[in-house]
Amino acid sequence: MTVKTGYITTDTKGNRDMIDLTPRLREMIGEWDCANGIITVFSVGSTAGITTIEFEPGLKKDMSLFLESILPYGHKYHHHETWHDDNGSSHLQASLIGPSVTIPVADGELTLGTWQQVVLVDCDTRPRRRKIVVQMLY
Amino acid sequence: MTVKTGYITTDTKGNRDMIDLTPRLREMIGEWDCANGIITVFSVGSTAGITTIEFEPGLKKDMSLFLESILPYGHKYHHHETWHDDNGSSHLQASLIGPSVTIPVADGELTLGTWQQVVLVDCDTRPRRRKIVVQMLY
Amino acid sequence: MTVKTGYITTDTKGNRDMIDLTPRLREMIGEWDCANGIITVFSVGSTAGITTIEFEPGLKKDMSLFLESILPYGHKYHHHETWHDDNGSSHLQASLIGPSVTIPVADGELTLGTWQQVVLVDCDTRPRRRKIVVQMLY
Repeated sequence: MTVKTGYITTDTKGNRDMIDLTPRLREMIGEWDCANGIITVFSVGSTAGITTIEFEPGLKKDMSLFLESILPYGHKYHHHETWHDDNGSSHLQASLIGPSVTIPVADGELTLGTWQQVVLVDCDTRPRRRKIVVQMLY
Repeated sequence: MTVKTGYITTDTKGNRDMIDLTPRLREMIGEWDCANGIITVFSVGSTAGITTIEFEPGLKKDMSLFLESILPYGHKYHHHETWHDDNGSSHLQASLIGPSVTIPVADGELTLGTWQQVVLVDCDTRPRRRKIVVQMLY
Repeated sequence: MTVKTGYITTDTKGNRDMIDLTPRLREMIGEWDCANGIITVFSVGSTAGITTIEFEPGLKKDMSLFLESILPYGHKYHHHETWHDDNGSSHLQASLIGPSVTIPVADGELTLGTWQQVVLVDCDTRPRRRKIVVQMLY
């Protein structure tokens, strides 16, 4: 078995900005010459999450509005008392989405649907530079 | 190491219909003669999710009512403007649940609890035929 | 390839109690002498979930209050009719968080951020003894 570990670095606008990681994942699978195995995509840090979604501008807005509706930025969070931070909502949103997805690769292809992309959702309250770990076992 | 990839096809009623995938997963583990390793169960497409739950009729209804309560079908979503679709809530519900679970297999058995099953939740607004990728590394 | 399977047992207070699993995971990686591969952390049972978060007392309270706000304990759930149970909210909270996370290990280290820990959130309505499966492929 082969274990390959790579990284994606991306700049975000924060505020539930959504970044499509799929094109870079496809490149990495090609570079590593993976045929069959699993790829784990993991977001380093506690205020961004990884999931899959149809990556189009409407859903980008909808996701942001939804997360804000259940975890409003301006609400009082105990987290703010701990660090005098303002991003309590960001932490909870990211934990809810979850930090990673694991996707099977079959015959050299991610087994995604046609309208399904792997995205980072950056829930922090300010622009961030994000590091994503990509690991493949095959 | 062995990589095995299989597929489950299942028809759903949409509208947060819940399908128990566990019996078929157990069969596949037996067919592949897996002793110890991980199994990844991944839903192809962006309007269904995979999680674990106690699969019983009450929780099936509760999950459906809960998802509808936080992401109502009849709400206006920007996604509807993009494609003239009606399933913006479906996409967000599915992204929130997440597209996959990864479960350890030990001594030939899924390490689930007695009252814990692996389920597909189909959040789309109409019946769908679903394809689920099952991959095992052992 | 090596497959190692271990277990963590921990007592919780229920009621969205949050337990930091990270120190024990680091010990296991050391004991197993893992350099590069994936670690899957899976909660056995259907009323607890696994995610990552900054483990500090403020966010512990915030997570509990948030889960209670979207899935109140005292609400009527169809699950209660099935088993005369009182933990319908616990099941839905746990399914939403999800039962597992999979994290890349690189150069013998979990690829977590500095302020990111792996936690169990016990959503049940009473104290529980929890079993968590930890499996590493490397």
